[in-house]
Order: sequence, then C-alpha cells, then structure tokens
Amino acid sequence: MERKEFRDLASPDEAREAIDSLSLEGGIDRVSLEAARGRVLVARLDAELDVPGFDRASLDGYALRARDTFGADEADPARLEVVGEVHAGEEPSIELEDGQAAEISTGAVMPSGADAMVPVERTDTDAGGDAVLIRTSVAPGDNVMFAGADVAAGERALGPGTQITPRDIGLLSALGVDEVPVRAKPRVGIVSTGDELVRPGGDLESERGEIYDVNSYTIAAGVEDAGGEAVLYPHAGDEQDEMEAVLRTAADECDLVLSSGSTSASAVDVIYRVIEEQGDLLLHGVSVKPGKPMLVGRLNDSAYVGLPGYPVSAMMVFRTFVAPAIRAAAGLPEPKAATVSGTLARQERYDEGRLRLMPVGLVQNGDGETLVYPVDKGSGATTSLAEADGVVTVDPGTDYLEAGEAVTVQLFSPDVRPPTLLGVGEDDPTLNRLLDGLENPRYLSVGTRPGLRRLREEVPDVAVAAGPLDREVDADELGRWSREWGLIVQAGNPHELEDLSDLVDRDLRFVNRTTDSGLRSSLEVAVDDLAADRDAGTGEIREAIEGFDLGLRAHESPARKVIAGDADVGLGLRQTAERLDLGFVSIGEQPVRVLANPDRTAKPGVRELATALEDVAGDS
Amino acid sequence: MERKEFRDLASPDEAREAIDSLSLEGGIDRVSLEAARGRVLVARLDAELDVPGFDRASLDGYALRARDTFGADEADPARLEVVGEVHAGEEPSIELEDGQAAEISTGAVMPSGADAMVPVERTDTDAGGDAVLIRTSVAPGDNVMFAGADVAAGERALGPGTQITPRDIGLLSALGVDEVPVRAKPRVGIVSTGDELVRPGGDLESERGEIYDVNSYTIAAGVEDAGGEAVLYPHAGDEQDEMEAVLRTAADECDLVLSSGSTSASAVDVIYRVIEEQGDLLLHGVSVKPGKPMLVGRLNDSAYVGLPGYPVSAMMVFRTFVAPAIRAAAGLPEPKAATVSGTLARQERYDEGRLRLMPVGLVQNGDGETLVYPVDKGSGATTSLAEADGVVTVDPGTDYLEAGEAVTVQLFSPDVRPPTLLGVGEDDPTLNRLLDGLENPRYLSVGTRPGLRRLREEVPDVAVAAGPLDREVDADELGRWSREWGLIVQAGNPHELEDLSDLVDRDLRFVNRTTDSGLRSSLEVAVDDLAADRDAGTGEIREAIEGFDLGLRAHESPARKVIAGDADVGLGLRQTAERLDLGFVSIGEQPVRVLANPDRTAKPGVRELATALEDVAGDS
Repeated sequence: MERKEFRDLASPDEAREAIDSLSLEGGIDRVSLEAARGRVLVARLDAELDVPGFDRASLDGYALRARDTFGADEADPARLEVVGEVHAGEEPSIELEDGQAAEISTGAVMPSGADAMVPVERTDTDAGGDAVLIRTSVAPGDNVMFAGADVAAGERALGPGTQITPRDIGLLSALGVDEVPVRAKPRVGIVSTGDELVRPGGDLESERGEIYDVNSYTIAAGVEDAGGEAVLYPHAGDEQDEMEAVLRTAADECDLVLSSGSTSASAVDVIYRVIEEQGDLLLHGVSVKPGKPMLVGRLNDSAYVGLPGYPVSAMMVFRTFVAPAIRAAAGLPEPKAATVSGTLARQERYDEGRLRLMPVGLVQNGDGETLVYPVDKGSGATTSLAEADGVVTVDPGTDYLEAGEAVTVQLFSPDVRPPTLLGVGEDDPTLNRLLDGLENPRYLSVGTRPGLRRLREEVPDVAVAAGPLDREVDADELGRWSREWGLIVQAGNPHELEDLSDLVDRDLRFVNRTTDSGLRSSLEVAVDDLAADRDAGTGEIREAIEGFDLGLRAHESPARKVIAGDADVGLGLRQTAERLDLGFVSIGEQPVRVLANPDRTAKPGVRELATALEDVAGDS
Repeated sequence: MERKEFRDLASPDEAREAIDSLSLEGGIDRVSLEAARGRVLVARLDAELDVPGFDRASLDGYALRARDTFGADEADPARLEVVGEVHAGEEPSIELEDGQAAEISTGAVMPSGADAMVPVERTDTDAGGDAVLIRTSVAPGDNVMFAGADVAAGERALGPGTQITPRDIGLLSALGVDEVPVRAKPRVGIVSTGDELVRPGGDLESERGEIYDVNSYTIAAGVEDAGGEAVLYPHAGDEQDEMEAVLRTAADECDLVLSSGSTSASAVDVIYRVIEEQGDLLLHGVSVKPGKPMLVGRLNDSAYVGLPGYPVSAMMVFRTFVAPAIRAAAGLPEPKAATVSGTLARQERYDEGRLRLMPVGLVQNGDGETLVYPVDKGSGATTSLAEADGVVTVDPGTDYLEAGEAVTVQLFSPDVRPPTLLGVGEDDPTLNRLLDGLENPRYLSVGTRPGLRRLREEVPDVAVAAGPLDREVDADELGRWSREWGLIVQAGNPHELEDLSDLVDRDLRFVNRTTDSGLRSSLEVAVDDLAADRDAGTGEIREAIEGFDLGLRAHESPARKVIAGDADVGLGLRQTAERLDLGFVSIGEQPVRVLANPDRTAKPGVRELATALEDVAGDS
C-alpha cells in the first residue's frame, strides 16, 4: 500500500496567502432593479436627472405668490382669485398674476408665477366661489419642493462597492434606473469524487458501503452563503481520465473549482496528480485540524482548492480559508464578528501541534453564564456541525484546555441562536413530539446511560432516562410518562411469538439495542427474571438468545432489520411497531423520566419543557 | 375641495394588533435540497436510516479481531495473515477468522468477523507478503464507526421551525433527503397607484409632473428582505373600477396586498372606498410620524395594508408595522436587535403628539463617540433613507431632544456599517472620483455655504468648499485643487459667446446656480468686477442678465437646460461641458478646498481622504 505523506505542512497563514494569490473574481452582471437587492455595485452611479424633476407642491392646497399673503392671518385673511387647478400628473395650463391663486394637489407641478403654496387647512373658500381666503402668510418656497432638492442631476448617487439595500433601491428608482452593473457572483464549481457516493434521493446500497454525498450540497450552500454561485458537477468516478475531464470542464466554466467528497486515498491521489501535472499546485497539506489534507492550486484559468473528504473537515476548511476569499471576490464585507464568550464545560486535551478548529455547542447554566462544550462524533461524522453553534480556535501550542477556562466562540453566523434548552438521553417518540412544541430545543439522543453521565457532569439542562435507574441521580424530575416495550416482529407475527421464552427456546434471529439504551436495561431485567423463574443462570439465558450481544444504537434500527428480513425479532416500542406497520409482542411498560439539573429549573427553556410535560402526564 | 380627515388615529399598538389579526401565512412548499438554504422547515424531520448505514473503517489500514492484537507493540508485533482487501464502495467478500486481517480503505465496510481496525501507520508488511505485522494493540470498536453512530434511524433530526443552514443541509444530505417541506413565503402583492407614476426605465415627462415609481420597488425589496415573495402588479390608474379590478386580482393571488405609491388624495380616496365597501376596513390612520395615512383591512381572503404615499413614510411604516408580520408569517425570527448608542448632534423639536420615527445618520467624532444626526430632506423626499443608517424612536410625549442627549439608534439591519467618513459641501467631479477610492464614505452635496455651516456645527468630518470663502472657518485644510468654470453653451457655441459681457449685453436666456454653490459665488465676484469695469452698479448688471436670479441646486442642471433648449447659457464647469459634449466659454479658475474638523484629523476615514488628496494635488 503506497501512501502520500504530508511531510511539510503549510501554516494556516501560508494557506490563506496561497488562496489570496488566486484570482476568483467574476466579471460584471447587469441586473434589473428587481434583482439588485444584495448585489454589489461595480461602478459609481451618478444622478442623470433632478429629483423631483419640477417644482412640486408638497401638500394639497393653493399655489400663489408669497407676497400676496404677507400680513394675512386667521382674523384678517388675504382674498385671492382662484384661476384654475393643477392635479398631479398634469401640465399646468395657467400662469399666475398678482392676486391670483390656483388649486393644487400634492405632487403637482407648481404653475408659472407661483412661488409658494398654502395647505388647504389654512384656507376657506369664499362665499362667492371663485375666490379663496388665505388665513396665514407664507414665504417664497414654503411647501414647495424645488426641482433637484431631493437629488440633483450630476450628483454622486451611489459609490462603487455599495451593497444594494432596499433603501438604495428607492434611490435608484427615483433616478429612473432600471438596470445596474453589479459584480458577477464568483462561479464556484463543485466536483464530487469517490465511487462510494450517492446523491441524496438516490438508492443507497449500504452493504456495498455506499453513503450519501454530503459535501457537495453542504459546500454548495456555504458557497451561496458567501455570495458565490454554486455549480454542482456530475459525480466523477475515481478514474484519472474521467476525473480530469470533469475538473477541466469545471475549470473552464468557473472562477474556482472545489473538489470535495471523497475520503478515499485513491481518489485524492488522482486529483493530486491532475493538478500537479496539468495545472499548478501551490500547496499540499495545512497544519490545521481538522483539515490537513488540503490542496491549493490552479487549473487552466481557474483557481482550485481541494477540500478534505470528511464532511466536518471539509466544512471547517471551507469556512476558514475559502469562504473569505469568495466573499472578497463577490465584493462583500466580512460579516461582523459574531462572538460569544463562555467557559469550557469540560477539559479538552489536544497535543498535535496543529491549529485546531473545534466545533462547539453552547448552553446557558443556571446563572445565565454560557457553557461551551465540544461537539465531536468522531472524524467520520457528517452531522456534528448541525449540532454546533460555532468554533473555538485552539492555538497549536496549547496542549489542553481546563474545564472552566474562558474561551471565545466564533458563531457560525451572526444570526445563530443558541438553543433555549439542551437535553440528552433516550430517544423516544413522545419526547420528540414534546420537543416539537418548544421554542428552540437541542436534543442529543445518546441513550439513557450516557445521558445520565452527562447530566452528572452538569453540561445539559435535562436528561431523559428510560427504564430502571442504575443509581441515584441528583436531579429534579420534571415529569414522566410510561411506554410499552417488547418484541417487534413482522406484520401478522408469522413466527407466532408469545413471549420472551420463545426467544430463548426457539431458533430466531434477534436484534438487541446497545447497553446505553433504557430498553436494553429493561430487557436485561426481564431476562434476569426469566432466569430466576427457570432457576437458570442469566448468562445461560442470554447465550441462548441469538444476537443478544449485537446491540444497535438507534431505537428504530432493530425494527428496520426485521423489515429488511435480516432478523426475525427486534427489541423496540409498541409505538415504533405501529408506526412501521409491524407486529408487536408486549413484554412490559417502562417509565421515561425527564430529569433536570437542579440549578437549571428556573431557566426559561426548562420551565417551558416542564409546562409541556404537564399535558403529557395528563395524556397518559 | 372635500377632504377626509383622520379624526380618531389609532395608537401604534392598535395598528400592530390590527395587522397581527390578519392571517398572512402561505401554505407549504416542497423544495429541493439545493433550494432549501434559508427556508423554514414546516414539520419535524426524523432520520429514516442509519448514518453510516454500515460499520465503517475510519482510516486506511487493516480490519481484524481486536483480541488478536492484545499485547502487541512496536517491539513485539502481532503477525496476522492477510486474506483479502476491502475498498470503499464495495461489498466485502471475506469473513475473518482468528489470526486473519484484511486490508481496508477509509470508509469501507468492515468485513464479517472483524471488530476493530489498525491504521496502516502502525503496521508493516511482512517480508513474506501475505502477512502483516501489527505494532499496537486495539480494543473492539477502535477506529470503526458503527452503523447509526452518526445519526440513528428514527432519531429526531431537525425540528419544525428550523431555518435551514448549510450545516443542516449536511445533515439532510447524509439522510438522503432531497426535498423538504418548508413554509411557503408569504406572497405580497404590491399595487402601485397614482396617475403621475412612471416605472423606472420608462420615459418621464417632468413638465407634466410625472415622477418615477419609488415605492413599488423599494417595498418589494423590503418584502423580500423580510422573507416574503413580492409580486408587482401593473400600475393602476385612479379610476375606481380599474383600481378595484387590480386590487381584487392581487387579493386573489396573494396573502397580503400592499397599496403604495400615490400621494394624491383622489387615489387614496378610491382605495379607501374599495376596501370599505368591498372588504373589511379595520383601521384608518395611525398616530405615528411619518405614516399617519395608513389603512389596515381585508379584501376577499387576503390581508390588506395601505401605505402612505411618500416614499420615506411608506418605508418607515412598512418597516415598523408590516415587515414584522411578514417575518412571522414566513416563520423567521425577528433579526437580532442591532442598536447603536450615541448622542444627538443637534436639537430636534417635535410637538405633534404622535410617535415619531426619525431616520438618522451616524458619524464618529474625534473621540470615537457616535454622533446621531437627523436625516430629513422634507416630506416629499424619496431618497433620505439611502443616506440614513437607522431610526430613533421619539415618544409622543417628548417635545424636543437637546443636542448632546443620549439616544438609541435602531439600525436598519444588523449589517449596516456606518460610513467611515462624513463629508458635506460642493458637488465636484474630481471629488466624486476621490470618494470612489475611499472605503465607505458618505457625502452630502448640499453646496459650499451649507457645508461650511454644518462644519461649524461640528457634525461632518469634512466640508468641501469651492470659490471664495465668505469668512474664516476653524478647520484644517486637507488639500485643494483648482477647477475651471464659465459658461456652458450648445456644442459649437452657435451664439458665439466670448465672455460674460455677452450675457449682459445680448438677449440670451441664462440659467444660474443657487447661492449655496461656490460656482455662484465666483460668478458674483466676476459680475462685481464687470460692474466696476463699467462703472455700473452690480444690481444693474445682474438685472441685465435674464435668469440671473433663477438658481438651480444641481451642478449639472444648467447644462441640462441648455441641452433641452430651455436656456442658451448655463453656469458650469469645463469638466461638465466636456462630459456632456457641450460648448464652453471659460471665465476663470476657482479653488476647491477640503476642510476638516480639527478634532477629526486623526480619524482613519479622514486620514484615508488626506492620503488620496496627495495624489490629486500631484495631478493638477
């Protein structure tokens, strides 16, 4: 097995410089006013006309000569002859002489000879009918907006680099501009690689090791968040010719090509060879974790960055190194720093000497302080970031961070809202419905045991525990409900199971849950009882059940094995069997308890959950 | 003239309640994963499969049974027989026995019988070739990601109401989801009214009082900012039948109809009648400034809000009352409060007893404190908001705010970046080019005199003054250049003007600039000199020039009058004449000075301008 080693890793700064040295800029787009919001003006825009284009009445009333009103007041109005009227949108046909006035609407053109207007509220029609009594005096220019007073022809209206807001669209409309030259969004081609990848929506053959392509869609969304235009290319296999063809097409059509998707060494090697032989390789490997296996280079006239294969790594590298370059090319400013200060919830060791980008979640403790906990499901995890709020950057020189240490979290975006409630523990359908009604909860279904352990470590607000509790927990029980558990079998129960004994005595393939789950705990108690009934050893009974030691993490996975025909019987809930139209043999009921950290019971999110639990208790 | 009065104005809270009582919600859209970013999930999404779907090797290396490695280390490796290999994306064809290992790639399916793997870095190929030396011991599960470890089937993946981020798209991709149910964007129809309105891009007849339609496009952009979908309807005239037809069509097709655009009393009256007679009028008039003439009601099954006609009023009412309702209907949270504290730059009087929404601009003084100045070009102004950064809300009970009073500014959006430099004064082409090179300047071309007055009031950082200075200003001159001014005539100078005397002695129609402009000041000096030469009175000379008293605000407007044939001669710059391909008769040169507030010379934006001025000085 021949392998490429990253012997000379570039520093993060060198990686940034390498990417900055690539030109990602697109050209100029001309977009309509309707499509201009958020785009970046490419050149200064000067007013080509006066706004308003004429001297304009600001109110409904009478246009007149100011000097005819001098001295007029409520008691002693000036009497002027009304010689006509002017409406908005029509050309005045009159010319005012001394002692004359014209009725005028808001927004109408001031007639010649008039130099001011008086609002209708300060006038009375004269009994005679063809005259008006003016009960105030005005100065020349009063209640008139002169041509160009709003914007004057030749004036600088918007500068280059302006990111167009709705308010700017108002200015552009006033100037009659219906098309503006804006920076083209940088086109970013995304080439997904790896023979094992299947596009979402396609059929997955898990037994062949196929997985859905996570990187392409995630990175595409990140590209658009950063102001670029994402172009997804058809999946390229691991053959060099095919890969090269796809990369070249993408390089011809885009300003930047990102390859992404594969963790396979052979696919990475093929891309590496294409860039090194056909393009210009600037950098290979960066001293950052996650993200070491990063490539930076050029292919044809396009920039190229190879992202690591693992989704979390790919996204972290994208955010740190690539997104800023896309924003710069799009003419967008860096988003305002959105940071949160908090204290680390538990010790973190790290001594690899690379810059570390540590995805973290946030939770407020009972004192309203922010606790910061690392979110890490292992290097192959695809979904950790959906459970994270931001990133803590750890210096290469830092070997460990103590629990309680102050850290600064860079939020993923300024509008990230950390959850109002952090729960951990058993997965349960009733709980899921409950969570749906809460404002912004986060729930990590790690199982009952790990949930209780984390509650003792005082990170989450609540833990949800099903089945018997191993030991006392210092917690406030917010509420509980009961659920029926047992054996899930195919619809109609074709093997005619009656109870747990059948599993011991007959030749059936069983699928269990992991020891983390509360269901497993209840099953073990039932097996102990059966052993006691039979005067047998527990180990003996367990061994008689084929698959007892094969524990799956997911609460629906045993049922799904039954559906797939890979097992005859699975451990599960009546609710799951009913939802999936399967048969069910009941063994017992178990309580599901919601246990809160006693310091957090006054926290709004916890109180909201407690209130929701009152209704559930009422249901059951 | 019959007029509707707003006798019983609703309070702002009543207006909010009336709008909340309307239902703006759209239905459900099913969108592809590529289009899901930023949309709001309408229902909970549970995992329908395990991720990964199989036990997966986390690294390149060897799959094996952990117990075969117990006790192995660098010095004393375990020797295992290599019985095959498994690549990513293929189904393993082998089953491991004791003492056996299989070569395995990152991401590949663990073969049956294997319960752990060892990375290739901790192994050596044996000389023999069909065996591997394992130089470490591993526990069961080491370097293996078990099926469902990332996401487990049946697990709650995303809750209802989630606004989908790129990270959530990662989770959805991993689950193979290629389409998600999201809240439909509320459809908001915008009906523009008023016979005087012309869509941007169309031809404007200013002499008829036509103006471009500002509200439709501005409000449409505001609707989209708030998460709605804007639909612009064709312009409706002021006839009741036509208006009613457009309003009904919009009400049928949209969740909310906004009418907007006209300041004309007749158009407003027509709409009022349609809603009152054909629909359900909830509210007419709100005690807020700007924004009094607001309507809230229903038409058919749609909600209806009538916005005031003036663009600034329309936008302020939209932001304050309508945008929050659109966001709520779209399922979007209110944007995080983005406020800035500052002190008011000058006294503001206000005693109308209505809630006041005061658009303001921001500028930092020399001490880094934020000064807040009202932005108001008068009630007909369309463009004030483009020069504002946010809004100060003034209580109905507050009659005036003192200069220096602390105020809180609600920024228009969290990403508003107040300008780095605030300049005021003369409009000038050289200055405009200079400004283009600065980071984020704001320049208000109010003319030389008002600019100097504002500089004395210590609001702007710099003032730009052209021509002779009336009196001493306490300011630091950052730089200056010279510009040639004179008489702009038609191309080829058909009237064969030679100098200012021709304007006095011949029968030519002249267009002047206002007394605010530095050009006018220089012209007045030249007229004084001519009067002295002729031993005549200045007034006499001025009166001999037809149009001397007609001063236009905009520096290009006189030239444009010449182009339009409305004048024979206009006051202007050589640069303007050349740009517009007109003739030019030079009268003189005048200095343009950039004068800085002495307290602000260390401010980065001022320093940036000073540096840019060095190059200009070099040019001229």
